Order: sequence, then structure tokens, then C-alpha cells
Amino acid sequence: MNTGPKLSQKNRDIVIEQLRSLLGDRVSTVSSVLEQHGRGESWHPTQPPDVVCFVRSNEEVSQVVRLCAEASMPIIAYGTGTSLEGQLQAINGGVSIDLSQMDQVLEVSTDDLDCRVQAGVTRRQLNQYLRDTGLFFPVDPGADTSIGGMTATRASGTNAVRYGTMRENVLALTVVTASGEIIRTGTRARKSAAGYDLTRLFVGSEGTLGIITEISLRLYGLSESISAAIVSFPDVRSAADATILTIQMGIPVARIELVDQAYMKAINNYSKTDYPELDTLFLEFHGTLAGVTEQAKLFEEISREFGASDFQWAEKEEDRNQLWRARHDAYYAGLAVSPGTRGYVTDVCVPISKLADCIEQTQKDIASTGLFAPIIGHVGDGNFHSTIFIDPDDNEMFETALNIDQRLVKRALDMGGTCTGEHGIGLGKLKHMRNEHGDGAIEVMKLIKQALDPLNIMNPGKTVDC
Amino acid sequence: MNTGPKLSQKNRDIVIEQLRSLLGDRVSTVSSVLEQHGRGESWHPTQPPDVVCFVRSNEEVSQVVRLCAEASMPIIAYGTGTSLEGQLQAINGGVSIDLSQMDQVLEVSTDDLDCRVQAGVTRRQLNQYLRDTGLFFPVDPGADTSIGGMTATRASGTNAVRYGTMRENVLALTVVTASGEIIRTGTRARKSAAGYDLTRLFVGSEGTLGIITEISLRLYGLSESISAAIVSFPDVRSAADATILTIQMGIPVARIELVDQAYMKAINNYSKTDYPELDTLFLEFHGTLAGVTEQAKLFEEISREFGASDFQWAEKEEDRNQLWRARHDAYYAGLAVSPGTRGYVTDVCVPISKLADCIEQTQKDIASTGLFAPIIGHVGDGNFHSTIFIDPDDNEMFETALNIDQRLVKRALDMGGTCTGEHGIGLGKLKHMRNEHGDGAIEVMKLIKQALDPLNIMNPGKTVDC
Repeated sequence: MNTGPKLSQKNRDIVIEQLRSLLGDRVSTVSSVLEQHGRGESWHPTQPPDVVCFVRSNEEVSQVVRLCAEASMPIIAYGTGTSLEGQLQAINGGVSIDLSQMDQVLEVSTDDLDCRVQAGVTRRQLNQYLRDTGLFFPVDPGADTSIGGMTATRASGTNAVRYGTMRENVLALTVVTASGEIIRTGTRARKSAAGYDLTRLFVGSEGTLGIITEISLRLYGLSESISAAIVSFPDVRSAADATILTIQMGIPVARIELVDQAYMKAINNYSKTDYPELDTLFLEFHGTLAGVTEQAKLFEEISREFGASDFQWAEKEEDRNQLWRARHDAYYAGLAVSPGTRGYVTDVCVPISKLADCIEQTQKDIASTGLFAPIIGHVGDGNFHSTIFIDPDDNEMFETALNIDQRLVKRALDMGGTCTGEHGIGLGKLKHMRNEHGDGAIEVMKLIKQALDPLNIMNPGKTVDC
Repeated sequence: MNTGPKLSQKNRDIVIEQLRSLLGDRVSTVSSVLEQHGRGESWHPTQPPDVVCFVRSNEEVSQVVRLCAEASMPIIAYGTGTSLEGQLQAINGGVSIDLSQMDQVLEVSTDDLDCRVQAGVTRRQLNQYLRDTGLFFPVDPGADTSIGGMTATRASGTNAVRYGTMRENVLALTVVTASGEIIRTGTRARKSAAGYDLTRLFVGSEGTLGIITEISLRLYGLSESISAAIVSFPDVRSAADATILTIQMGIPVARIELVDQAYMKAINNYSKTDYPELDTLFLEFHGTLAGVTEQAKLFEEISREFGASDFQWAEKEEDRNQLWRARHDAYYAGLAVSPGTRGYVTDVCVPISKLADCIEQTQKDIASTGLFAPIIGHVGDGNFHSTIFIDPDDNEMFETALNIDQRLVKRALDMGGTCTGEHGIGLGKLKHMRNEHGDGAIEVMKLIKQALDPLNIMNPGKTVDC
């Protein structure tokens, strides 16, 4: 691994002084601030940067990048600190550019169903802002992440089966390149055949090619009618098969989430609910009243074929919120039944026809280790997560988790899938990049990285450094 | 413009001999074959390559590219020859790699709604192949183009408003790079956060970064019910406003096409139809019977608000085909009413809120020139085409057409749009690239081009050579 340029402490101090002249008290070297900026929300150990800058404009980001380029100082963009694969760890120190103060919604067009926001705007903030417009932004990875971070990691989540991921929902970007240029990728047109798709190149590049500072997004009209449901199945295969048929029939489900039996037990315990403790689908339908009714009816017919029972429908907003809160609290529910543990989180995505096989084999594998590792998934996309609850001080348990993950990724790749559907590469999945893409495609990625960041200062050691 | 390496005739002859040893009689230097491979379907003058190779496998493409790389010989990929902006013109000679014999559908998964095809498969051939599966591939740019060409130019067309363009519908690619490596971009997973989005980088790169040899595509289930309609409006603004409201309300129209009054007259003359000679929308709705009925009813309500009249519905396949044939024959209808002319075709795409303004101003501009230049558009995306019928031998007329085009692009860019929604850059729109993207973004595109094609042998002089 080439972790980028090595810089002496003296040179680092010079850069920090220059940053202070530029940004005054919006530069911090307080150790708790550094620690906070050197980690995400997963098991990856904290690796703090040398300094954190709180920037407020494209121009400030450009100036910081130019200073860093001059000194070959590494740069890591920071949004809400919710990444899961070590994207934020400053493996060789450097400057963390905290974009959370770039939190303005710059433009909303209700006519064109689009908006432009600064990178630090969070998805809940955006939807709050849109509340009176009748529009919403659908991509929902769970946490209240920044739009910049979601863009940089190509986030998706529960609504992606209907509305797509960040790949489909970003129209254009403002990016500060590794040389400090402020560029704009894309226009407000919905489609274009004008040159290379730089927008899609930066989406998912995890800060290794430039700093995303503004994002233009597609928005959607709120549906006239929304209906949520929770349905129990005799086993994971039945739930997966019902999902496959639903997708094949083109039923435009907005959400279709699998929560396995182990997680359902934990949820009942944590949320004081009394859902059947079986493999379960959580669903949501969006549309006109007639459309939602028809979708729901078709889905119910399909799922009965696969032995589904205990349909519970939620139409009122508060009932739907309660249902989704139970789903979103799954992680905390898992922690509550395994006190003292921390979740080792991993995700893969496979062609939907392989989903039942992949989950079943993974469950068997997990069972053979004796660890508690329930499964939850955005199954309409073929994407699922395993959270392996481990004692953070137990090295042997950690090794077992790593090995489960290793086998899970191999299984997904063998089935024509990807090593991560939505959590990204960061440091955690670097070792799988060559297996997934092959040496030739990795070489192309590296050529792009070298061309756009010749000093290797943009989040060095991540994503393509394999 | 840097048109790439200059090669002596002697060196060209050596490459041609090497190609003959490799491919035998699948190498042609017959002048009619060269001519055919040096042009598309638009006004751009023919510029023939030195030689045409008819390849049959990834390995053959790789071998041809390696030979060319050795000799710095330009390479241009060729599918069906239907490009519109000079993408095929061999401005500095070289090898045309004709992929039409790579015409195999390699895999279809009805479970996963995907397929993998060789680049020379055409879209009609694919849909014919899929006929018994209940699936179809929706992207329809009009001509029966190759999937490889559609991918390389980021094609879209009538169904894009519902199903997306090639950008959204390509899952993965096999590409032969400029050094002759055969790489695979992407997997069969519907989404991934694993590294740079090479798939989207090659989609729309017009053969300037590598040769696309295989394409994995999303497929869709045929709808239970399809209904088409043709509706007249008092003026273009009313038709555009009805379109905007339809999109804003989230009605999932599968097609919504504007044909202006001038084109409707020409169509009636050519197709012996008696449609009202007014600004007209052609539509199609896909869904369940109840869904289609509801969509149609909502659309009819909306359009009546904007003064629509003369609704004609077509449910039977033959009636729908007749309606769409009239729409697709518009170009020939235009030629029929302006004998001796050839169409100068251009397209732009703007935010949908600007569509009515952009079309109206363009019509006024055209009227002031006295030329016959009707308008047709995929208006649900904000994308429309003007076809300027000109005498190919009349230089003044040609200059007038160029100037109309120039002003049209400026208008679209000023409105936040793009200089081409679907026809691409090629040679024809190179001059607009910097205005659209800015110097900084163009510099990034050029860095990518240099990194991936350091010898500048892949379709030199196109797309980013501005």
C-alpha cells in the first residue's frame, strides 16, 4: 500500500500555521476534535488527522487544497463522521476538511424537481427544508448523513429499490480538484451526451479524486398515498423469493427490507413490540390511492404463495413511523441483547436470483462460528448487511468476524455480485478490490487517480490503493 | 485541435498487412467500404479510414488495438453507422473496427432482469431475441442502432423519460483499453459502492477511451397494459406546460413526445394521415390495466387545462404501431415536403421549466431565417431536436443552419441546459464543450483521456479534443 507522501512534523506545523492565517479560529488541533475526525461509526481504529479546518465556501476549500498541495499534505473530507469502512481514518495524518458549516440549501426548483445544496447539508435537514414544497429527497441510508458524504460514498439505503442510489440522483457537482481548481460537473439538464460523465466519476470516489462541495440533486413529489406493511415468512428463502417475484413483476415497491428472525427477536426485546419472531419483510408502497391499493394487493397475493402470514398494514403517518423506527433501531436492538459488544458491520450485493442462496449460506456460516450476527437487507436490490456483534477487546472474536466477512465477500463475488452495495471501500474492503474488478480495471482506476491527484494527497491509501 | 499522431503511408501499409495476417479476408480497403465507415447519418462530410476490420471476439479487438498501439495508428469503433455528430469520421485515417459481426446475445437472466450482449447486437435484434421471455430493453433512439454504439454515445430516445438512458441501463461493460487490455467494469449487482464508476466513464465516451465489446443491460417486464395517445394543443407552450405538470405530478408516462405543427403537416402529407395540424403530443402509458387507465385519466385532465383537444387513443398493438410509425417517419416526412434537401439535425436538453421558452425562442429564430426547420422532442426530459432542411450544395443555407444551431446551443446553456441531450459531441459539438463545462472540467476530462490513451489513438480529435 502506498500511503502517500511522508511529511516532517516541521512541515506539518508550517501548513497548520498557514491554515490559521487563512481561517483563524476555524482551525483546530484539539485532540478530542482530531480523534472525532479520525473515525467513522464502525470497528476501524481511530487514526486522527494533524489538524481540522472548518470551511465555509468553495473558495476556502480551494485555498486549503492549494496550501496542502504546495506541502504535499494529505486531505480528508469530513461530513457527519458516519462512514463504515474506514473512509475517514487519517492513516498518514494530514488535514481534515470539515464541511459541516457548508450547510446551506442554495436553490430549490419545484418546477424542475431539483435542488442544489452545500456538501454539509444533511438529508434530514434537506427534507425539513422541503417540507412545504410537496417534494422530498428519497435516498435514505439510515443515519442523518451529509449529502456530501452520501455522494462521496455512493450511498443508497431503503428507498433505492424505487428511487435509485446517489448514482442516479445526483445531477451535477461542484468539486475542488487536487490542484485547487473549482469545477462544475454536469448541468441542470436531466440527461446529456456531452463528454465524459465526471459527475458519476466523483460519486463514490470517497474523496480520493477531489472534494465535493456542492451537489445538485433530483427531487420527487410526495406521493398522494403511502402504505407500509410488515409480513412474516416461514424462512429467509420464502421472503427472498417473494421479493424476487415482486421485482420481476415490476411492482414499484418503494421499500422492501428483510429483517431476519434473530433481529426480530432483538427488536421485540428492545422496542417492546410483539411482532412475530420470524423472518420478516418491511415494505412501503408509494403512489395514488388506487395505485397503492393495487400494489399492496398484488404483493399480498405473491407473498401468500410463499407462505406469508401476519400481514400488518400501517397507513397513518405515526403508525408508519413506528414501524420504520423498529426497523431502523435494529442495530441498537442487537447491541441490547449482546451487552458489551460492538457491531462489525459488512454489506454485499448480489444478483437478486442469488439472494436466497447467499443469505442462507451466510447464515449457516455464521451459525458454525457461534457468533451473534443477524442479517438485515435492502433485498429489492439484492443488497444485505450482516452485523457481527463482537467484544471489541476479544481478538479471537474479531478474527472470526473478519473471516466471516472474507467468506461472505467471496461468496458474493462468486455469485456475480459486489463486495459492497453501499458502505464503500475505504480501508476495510481494499483487499477485495482486485478480486472484484481484476487487475486491468484496477490499473485503469489507478491511472485516473494518478492523473487527477498526482501528488496523492486526496485521502491517500483508500479506495483504489490496492 | 490535436488530431493525434501523423503516420506515413508506409507505416499504414505495414499495419494493414499485419491486420491481414491476423484477420485474413475480414480486412477491407475497398473504397466503398471505407467510405461507408467514414460517415454517420448527418451532414458531416465523409472522412474514410485507411482500413476496416471485421472483428469477432474480444481477443481479436485486443490484438488489433495492440497492433495499432505499436504503430500509433488511430482506431475508430463502428457499429451501425447511425451517429449524428461526426463520431465516425476518420479525420486522420486509421483503422475502423467494425463490431457488427460481434452479434451474439451472450446471456439473458429472466430472474435478474438482465442480459449480456456483444457490442454489435442491435436493439431490435435484442428485443426480437427477448420476445418469448416477457422482457424487453426499452432504450429506443429511433434507428436500429447497435447496443455498443448506443452505449458509446450515451443514447436515449423516446422511452427515457420512464426507463432512463443508457447511463441508467448499462450494468457493466467489457472494454478493450488503449493498451489492448480486456477489462470488465462492474458486476451483475444492481448497485455497488466498490471503487470508481468505470462503467459510467466509458458510457458516452464515444470510443475515445477504449472499445466497448460487451454490454450488460437492465431489462424490464413487458407491461400488462399499454395505451398510446395523440393529443393536439393550441400552441407549443400549452403542450410543454402540460408536459411539465405531468412530470411534476409523477405520472409515470413511458413516452411523451412533442411534434410541432410544421412536422404534423409534413406527417399528414407523407403518411396519408389526417391528424389535426396543430402542436401535438404523442404519448404512451405502461402499467397494469387499472394503472394505465388512471394515468391516462390524470393526463387527460391536465392537458384539458391547457386547451388540449382531439384526443385519439390507441390500445391495440397495430394501432399503436401506426401512431408511432407516423412519429418515427417525421424526418422522411420533412424530406418529402422539401425535395432535394438534407436534414441538419441538432439537439439540446434544458431544465423542463425552460422548455417552452427555449422552444418558442428557437421557433422565432428559425422563422426569422426563412428556413424549414420543424421541431420534435422527448419533452418529458426537456430534450428536443430541430431538423433544419437544407440544400446540401447551398453554402449560404448551410451557414444559416450552423448559426441557428449555434444560437440554439447558447440559448440552452444560458438556461442551465446541455448542448446535446443524446446525439453526443463527436466533431459537431466540440466547439461548445468549453462553454458548457468550463476550462477546469475540460482539463479534468483531458487528464483522463491522456492517462487512459497516452498515444491518442482512440478516436482522436473527438469529444474532449477542444
